[in-house]
Amino acid sequence: MFQIIFLLSLFLSISNASVQDFCVADLKGSDTPSGFPCKPATTVTAEDFAYSGLIEEANVTNIINAAVTPAFVGQFPGLNGLGLSAARLDLGPAGVIPLHSHPGASELLIVTQGHITAGFVSSANTVYIKTLKRGELMVFPQGLLHFQATAGKRKAVAFPVFSSANPGLQILDFALFASNFSTPLIAKTTFLDPVLIKKLKSVLGGSG
Amino acid sequence: MFQIIFLLSLFLSISNASVQDFCVADLKGSDTPSGFPCKPATTVTAEDFAYSGLIEEANVTNIINAAVTPAFVGQFPGLNGLGLSAARLDLGPAGVIPLHSHPGASELLIVTQGHITAGFVSSANTVYIKTLKRGELMVFPQGLLHFQATAGKRKAVAFPVFSSANPGLQILDFALFASNFSTPLIAKTTFLDPVLIKKLKSVLGGSG
Amino acid sequence: MFQIIFLLSLFLSISNASVQDFCVADLKGSDTPSGFPCKPATTVTAEDFAYSGLIEEANVTNIINAAVTPAFVGQFPGLNGLGLSAARLDLGPAGVIPLHSHPGASELLIVTQGHITAGFVSSANTVYIKTLKRGELMVFPQGLLHFQATAGKRKAVAFPVFSSANPGLQILDFALFASNFSTPLIAKTTFLDPVLIKKLKSVLGGSG
Amino acid sequence: MFQIIFLLSLFLSISNASVQDFCVADLKGSDTPSGFPCKPATTVTAEDFAYSGLIEEANVTNIINAAVTPAFVGQFPGLNGLGLSAARLDLGPAGVIPLHSHPGASELLIVTQGHITAGFVSSANTVYIKTLKRGELMVFPQGLLHFQATAGKRKAVAFPVFSSANPGLQILDFALFASNFSTPLIAKTTFLDPVLIKKLKSVLGGSG
Amino acid sequence: MFQIIFLLSLFLSISNASVQDFCVADLKGSDTPSGFPCKPATTVTAEDFAYSGLIEEANVTNIINAAVTPAFVGQFPGLNGLGLSAARLDLGPAGVIPLHSHPGASELLIVTQGHITAGFVSSANTVYIKTLKRGELMVFPQGLLHFQATAGKRKAVAFPVFSSANPGLQILDFALFASNFSTPLIAKTTFLDPVLIKKLKSVLGGSG
Amino acid sequence: MFQIIFLLSLFLSISNASVQDFCVADLKGSDTPSGFPCKPATTVTAEDFAYSGLIEEANVTNIINAAVTPAFVGQFPGLNGLGLSAARLDLGPAGVIPLHSHPGASELLIVTQGHITAGFVSSANTVYIKTLKRGELMVFPQGLLHFQATAGKRKAVAFPVFSSANPGLQILDFALFASNFSTPLIAKTTFLDPVLIKKLKSVLGGSG
Repeated sequence: MFQIIFLLSLFLSISNASVQDFCVADLKGSDTPSGFPCKPATTVTAEDFAYSGLIEEANVTNIINAAVTPAFVGQFPGLNGLGLSAARLDLGPAGVIPLHSHPGASELLIVTQGHITAGFVSSANTVYIKTLKRGELMVFPQGLLHFQATAGKRKAVAFPVFSSANPGLQILDFALFASNFSTPLIAKTTFLDPVLIKKLKSVLGGSG
Repeated sequence: MFQIIFLLSLFLSISNASVQDFCVADLKGSDTPSGFPCKPATTVTAEDFAYSGLIEEANVTNIINAAVTPAFVGQFPGLNGLGLSAARLDLGPAGVIPLHSHPGASELLIVTQGHITAGFVSSANTVYIKTLKRGELMVFPQGLLHFQATAGKRKAVAFPVFSSANPGLQILDFALFASNFSTPLIAKTTFLDPVLIKKLKSVLGGSG
Repeated sequence: MFQIIFLLSLFLSISNASVQDFCVADLKGSDTPSGFPCKPATTVTAEDFAYSGLIEEANVTNIINAAVTPAFVGQFPGLNGLGLSAARLDLGPAGVIPLHSHPGASELLIVTQGHITAGFVSSANTVYIKTLKRGELMVFPQGLLHFQATAGKRKAVAFPVFSSANPGLQILDFALFASNFSTPLIAKTTFLDPVLIKKLKSVLGGSG
Repeated sequence: MFQIIFLLSLFLSISNASVQDFCVADLKGSDTPSGFPCKPATTVTAEDFAYSGLIEEANVTNIINAAVTPAFVGQFPGLNGLGLSAARLDLGPAGVIPLHSHPGASELLIVTQGHITAGFVSSANTVYIKTLKRGELMVFPQGLLHFQATAGKRKAVAFPVFSSANPGLQILDFALFASNFSTPLIAKTTFLDPVLIKKLKSVLGGSG
Repeated sequence: MFQIIFLLSLFLSISNASVQDFCVADLKGSDTPSGFPCKPATTVTAEDFAYSGLIEEANVTNIINAAVTPAFVGQFPGLNGLGLSAARLDLGPAGVIPLHSHPGASELLIVTQGHITAGFVSSANTVYIKTLKRGELMVFPQGLLHFQATAGKRKAVAFPVFSSANPGLQILDFALFASNFSTPLIAKTTFLDPVLIKKLKSVLGGSG
Repeated sequence: MFQIIFLLSLFLSISNASVQDFCVADLKGSDTPSGFPCKPATTVTAEDFAYSGLIEEANVTNIINAAVTPAFVGQFPGLNGLGLSAARLDLGPAGVIPLHSHPGASELLIVTQGHITAGFVSSANTVYIKTLKRGELMVFPQGLLHFQATAGKRKAVAFPVFSSANPGLQILDFALFASNFSTPLIAKTTFLDPVLIKKLKSVLGGSG
């Protein structure tokens, strides 16, 4: 055995200490534009590359009869630097994931249960909509407004995946009505009626 | 002179034919994910690197008392592949560039006349707003909803620049109310009132 | 209606002709390092952004009791330039996707049925292995050898997704034994026994 | 209000703590190849996204009758990771920004006052020169030598923007004559006369 | 001299403190997906940009009659963030660098002594092989299995360079037979004979 | 054999037609920002991945006693899209590669014969110089002015490699004195003496 190690060290004069094929996030370190600092390779185990947080069906007893459970780098540190992340969509009957965008990633949706109507709007104001069934895919180009909604009466499940470990998620209604965006400014920049804005803020928790 | 050329060819055995430091777009060619094919270097002149389309003040006698004049790769082919583009904002008194996002770029705004109130909303539903005067800058991270509006009573001018030659531009009101996005689907995915949606569609030209 | 269009053209002096948020592949055009040329935006429909080729369970009556069905840009042109693709793995009882790598992408595996044992080997010759159940994820960093195999006696299904529209797929056994890689060179560069190499070539169809 | 928060948390099981759409530089942290570490999102305010350092006309009573005022990541930390920065050029009568290059970025120049003659030299030793007026743009591809000079007798102002938050700035005369580059080596690698080199060093402060 | 500095500071109001054209690795800092944090610019010297570790011919008295000496970022911190690294291959008579891949980089091989037969296998299972002499180059696209072997009876030397400061190196035999990859799993995922696997593990030091 | 193909097609339902791990340049096609279009994979052979143009020592009987022989994508199409290229430097006694920069790439220099003094100047006007011997490396960060010169009395050879298939090459003296850059403008933007400029133009072939 001693001889083998000796042979190896002769053959390949490389210090493994600084060789990493991956960069599991140390979430306690400061984020950078390319992602989090890496955990020391010596502390990385197989557990770092797997994630169990999307197994369970989420509770959809809420205002949208739907839920989004993310597996972004904040939840699944093994994704750091690898340009990929995922989420789980649970859609009850009449469920809807409201109009939203991912500022930092394109999305590829994989439907695994039920039927889902999904669509996006392009910069040219064209709407692309499809109703998808189990096993079908749909892609939403980066940064564009899109939605998913239950088609039919049964619940549906899908796994969206993203071209970034940290895709971001801007939900239109939350940006407008669950924020401190002032009602006059929203009215001015969207042409929506202030009365309506205030009403939606009261439902979604916005101020201003 | 003959000798010089001889010396140069001895010194540097490089065929200039395939050496390009730039790639002025041939807009008649097919776009690719990295941009348009390049014009032959031999046909490129200084004109290709300059653009005069933002000199004139745009007419702001319209519904928003404002105008956006782009200098993207489609208008200014010299930008192709260089990761930069620009536009001109003209804001009349009470003018507003409604809530919008650029799916493919961050934006840096340079105010050159008047006062402008600008802001964006983050994925965490935080609103960042500033009133800017001549010479001030504001940056809007990629893909997030943002707006610009005249502050004060005088007209304002600004030059936004973008981190892509083709940043895209999705205007929220146009995506919703100047498209063929069906009213029931908009209502379902935004919680907006169908009556309001139809009213805004009638103003902005939407169908469905 | 005329007035609306007039207002829009006043407001936004942009030629939509060259604005694309996406670049659906024209597979008849020549590929480039960034992907295929784009179909004209005017011919793009919602169909271009959806894909149905992964719906069906693949036949696994073969040597590995398993099948890989890709949805790369060659099959799903809407992915072009978006940095994402997918595939479907069908694993029969005792099925195995043999050791392989994706030269151009990291992989995120989503298990949707059954149990799968999966693993990869790092540059430091460490093996990271996990047994995953329905709803669990595992990530395989770019370019590293990895495998998936049925765990338990029931069939399994998973959807791997990739950080490129064209991730590539190099299957170790095929690279060695289904190619024209000469037996002496394989023996020399892998230390495998020539007799064994020839036997595996006869099974997998290799020459040389 | 309690109910709203409850609904939101049901709907979107995401920890905002690690979600950032931006990465405002913590300039006290160590720079990385992708930029500085991010300030904690909780301490970020609208002030971080705006910059006032380019408002004032710079003093041009100097050797070049001109001044460059940068708004790079070191001055404007909100630009970190966003692939954009800017500067202000003040050019007095007969002012000139001497031949220089930006090693890490392309430049797009926006003229906002007066007339400016600008140009760059390509790898093929072709010179592209234009005289620009207020509102005109010119682009300088990455890494190439270029200059700006006042055209006409009145002062001029322009805002160059860059395709990186940290574009770098190598001024030819400073590289040669304000550095410790030894006179014999400069002479050897540029064919310039040592007497001239020493004279320019005495003006610009070089040593060696 | 005082006046010069005054003139410079008037001319160019830039703080050099945060301006770096390079990012020499501080290997004691935590790696990130884009590389290591930068050493302070004030401590960087010419030594940081040069490397002497590839001067010496390596000992090739080992199992493969060959040696790989890397100059990756871990050995040569000046490469950090610059997208380049190198190594030295010493090949004795009958030497071979066994089948391997670089998960994070393409490779360009420069032969500087002797003759080398090199080749790679593509995803389409095509083998591309060339015998190279002194001064010849060969490129191995990212992530694909490739090898180098002495051609002829004399020793050979080559310098491979890589498109990343940290290209990784996965040697097939080491991944399989010098790791803790269990014999039954290797057999299952490669179709290799368990007896052979155990034999190779005993030579190369693998366990499991 | 028929059965094998049948098994393979069952196992892996992938069309190889659009799968490429590489993109050998079709130099007759139009360049794009990411490189040239790809040759059809079916016409690619091992020859495409090798290059013999750097074998021969170049003639250095010229004004600089040196020669640069490039192996960029224009000469070596197999490099297209792979982020790497190379060149050969031949330096006679007293040879010098004059001050130059590569606008699109960092450079790593490998000395293979003789002694070379090399250096670069940073944006902070610091000069980093080293004298290198056979087997030593030096890195020149992207876009910065640098030079190489023979050290000692014997000829030297080196292979610079670049982080782009098309790094560009801007030689300072050629940009100024072998171009049509007008003498008054050069004088204005460099502070060089017009008489000297004209003298150097007469040697190097410049006009204007």
